[in-house]
Amino acid sequence: MNAHTSLETPAVLIHRPQLLSNISRMAQLAADKGIKLRPHVKTHKIPEIAQLQVAAGAQGITCATIGEAEVFARAGFHDIFIAYPLHLGSAAKARLNALPGAVTIGVDSVEAAENLVGVRADIKAFIEVDCGHRRSGVLPDSAELTEIHAALGERYAGVFTFPGHSYGPGNAAGAALAETTALQACVEKLGGGLSSGGSSPTAALTRGIDEMRPGVYTFNDAQQLDSGACTEADIALTVLSTVVSRNVADRRVIVDAGSKILSTDKPTWINGHGFVKGHPDLRISALSEHHATLFWPAELELPKIGAQLEVIPNHACNVINLVDRVYVAGEETSWPVVARGQNS
Amino acid sequence: MNAHTSLETPAVLIHRPQLLSNISRMAQLAADKGIKLRPHVKTHKIPEIAQLQVAAGAQGITCATIGEAEVFARAGFHDIFIAYPLHLGSAAKARLNALPGAVTIGVDSVEAAENLVGVRADIKAFIEVDCGHRRSGVLPDSAELTEIHAALGERYAGVFTFPGHSYGPGNAAGAALAETTALQACVEKLGGGLSSGGSSPTAALTRGIDEMRPGVYTFNDAQQLDSGACTEADIALTVLSTVVSRNVADRRVIVDAGSKILSTDKPTWINGHGFVKGHPDLRISALSEHHATLFWPAELELPKIGAQLEVIPNHACNVINLVDRVYVAGEETSWPVVARGQNS
Repeated sequence: MNAHTSLETPAVLIHRPQLLSNISRMAQLAADKGIKLRPHVKTHKIPEIAQLQVAAGAQGITCATIGEAEVFARAGFHDIFIAYPLHLGSAAKARLNALPGAVTIGVDSVEAAENLVGVRADIKAFIEVDCGHRRSGVLPDSAELTEIHAALGERYAGVFTFPGHSYGPGNAAGAALAETTALQACVEKLGGGLSSGGSSPTAALTRGIDEMRPGVYTFNDAQQLDSGACTEADIALTVLSTVVSRNVADRRVIVDAGSKILSTDKPTWINGHGFVKGHPDLRISALSEHHATLFWPAELELPKIGAQLEVIPNHACNVINLVDRVYVAGEETSWPVVARGQNS
Repeated sequence: MNAHTSLETPAVLIHRPQLLSNISRMAQLAADKGIKLRPHVKTHKIPEIAQLQVAAGAQGITCATIGEAEVFARAGFHDIFIAYPLHLGSAAKARLNALPGAVTIGVDSVEAAENLVGVRADIKAFIEVDCGHRRSGVLPDSAELTEIHAALGERYAGVFTFPGHSYGPGNAAGAALAETTALQACVEKLGGGLSSGGSSPTAALTRGIDEMRPGVYTFNDAQQLDSGACTEADIALTVLSTVVSRNVADRRVIVDAGSKILSTDKPTWINGHGFVKGHPDLRISALSEHHATLFWPAELELPKIGAQLEVIPNHACNVINLVDRVYVAGEETSWPVVARGQNS
């Protein structure tokens, strides 16, 4: 499992067979539907992984910030959609203008569209549409949709949405339908344009749009497992940890993977803060910065002090953002997380 | 507020007057009680701030990991307690042995104490005691306490605890009493040794011990405010963010400070994911990686797209670990977070 013999814990392990299978399955899903795949690289922030995605058929990549786009542009990716409603100051405009290749961004207000004065003319924009997640984006039937379209003029490229309400057990089908309906209605109303949607939970269900931008399918995590978007066999990222403390009477075990590597992402519908590989019911019940608390089931032998456990986190995207390097399990390979921390 | 004119959001701002006042108040509290102050630097991970703490009277510092200790040792701090139940592999032992100056560590098992073979003889250990937080640490009345003491032999330095159950409204007094009672009972049982306790919520109440190790008092945050350990006037760390989207009918406002800068720390007793400075009831209701959702009260004017807001996070320690640099508000000063990401 661990060819990095001197690897100190906690450390993020990437499991290559699962990674490759996740990447090829999503590429096949997109190809079968005739939808372009533009994966969101915020999940991994690692150019080597984006190269695997492109080799499998992805066309272009998606970023969340200009900073991520800069890092991936330096690594040779020159078709980037920053799928975020950017409101740009002068420094951000200069950074955006300096990006090479095909760059598109998101807007969801007339103010942001009008603020694009000074942005390079070939930088196009997608209007963000809210298909039910109730975060950013304009509603398909709102007057703002056409106002933003008018304000964008020649920059208008299409509409995009994120069906984030697909997260959670049983939500994917309804969210996928809402996504398609909203995007198609907007394209029709605006008389054309591309439609961009897609999340990992809806990817198998979505159709009738031009491209999709799933991210977390690359690794998968406890949240995707509980959402029904993957099985445990599809999990490609774990956190190697060491048992540092235990209370035998309480069967309480403490490992050294805390919130500073697992993050504390925990939607209300998910149980605990991640689980032990091979034991999806063995959930972390409490998390401090450098401690994770597990209550060990009576039917399993209590691990010894110094034993190593692999933890499957709730949300892989936030784990990646907490480490500078990840280690490919069973190999000598490691990858720097070169876009870690690019928040703006 | 912001002398860093080209500062792009989201960005962490440090407010120097509040920082200095928090540092000097805690130093005075410790001096008044005759307790040594050994602040936990995991909160800030910034040597410049630790130097302010030492200048105000702190004696030594506390770290969570060997990696943090290495960074602070390079910055000139040579009296470091790694207050964590370390279980050391050979690489970790070598790193520990290479630390200069006075180094103490934590242990809470016979296995970890016996594993100290090969660790430099002048590196001493504190036995971690559980005073009610039910995380790591041995119970004061357990047989293990004396067994670990025997296994440590000449390395034994004393006992330490973290009254983490002090977090939450109304919990501090009980936790402070439990802390003192547990530490005093253990020192008596073991026939001597130093006692180290302390957390920010209990700092004003604790007495009868040798030193305390509060951390988050340096900055304070929404969690400390709701615990009753500080007021809003004592908050020294905020996250500058920009309004990127809004839904006027719903009075929903989205700012660009998401979980990749605020973290998602949210104990069940706290409402929301942080709040807007000056409006402690204006809590973030949802958090994605780059979006924070706020529902704006009817009595306040809705902020415009592009407006900047300062967000007070739930847990400052996890915010610091997400950025490479912080900016001192109203000055040209910035500090690199040199110990960011030191998880092992």
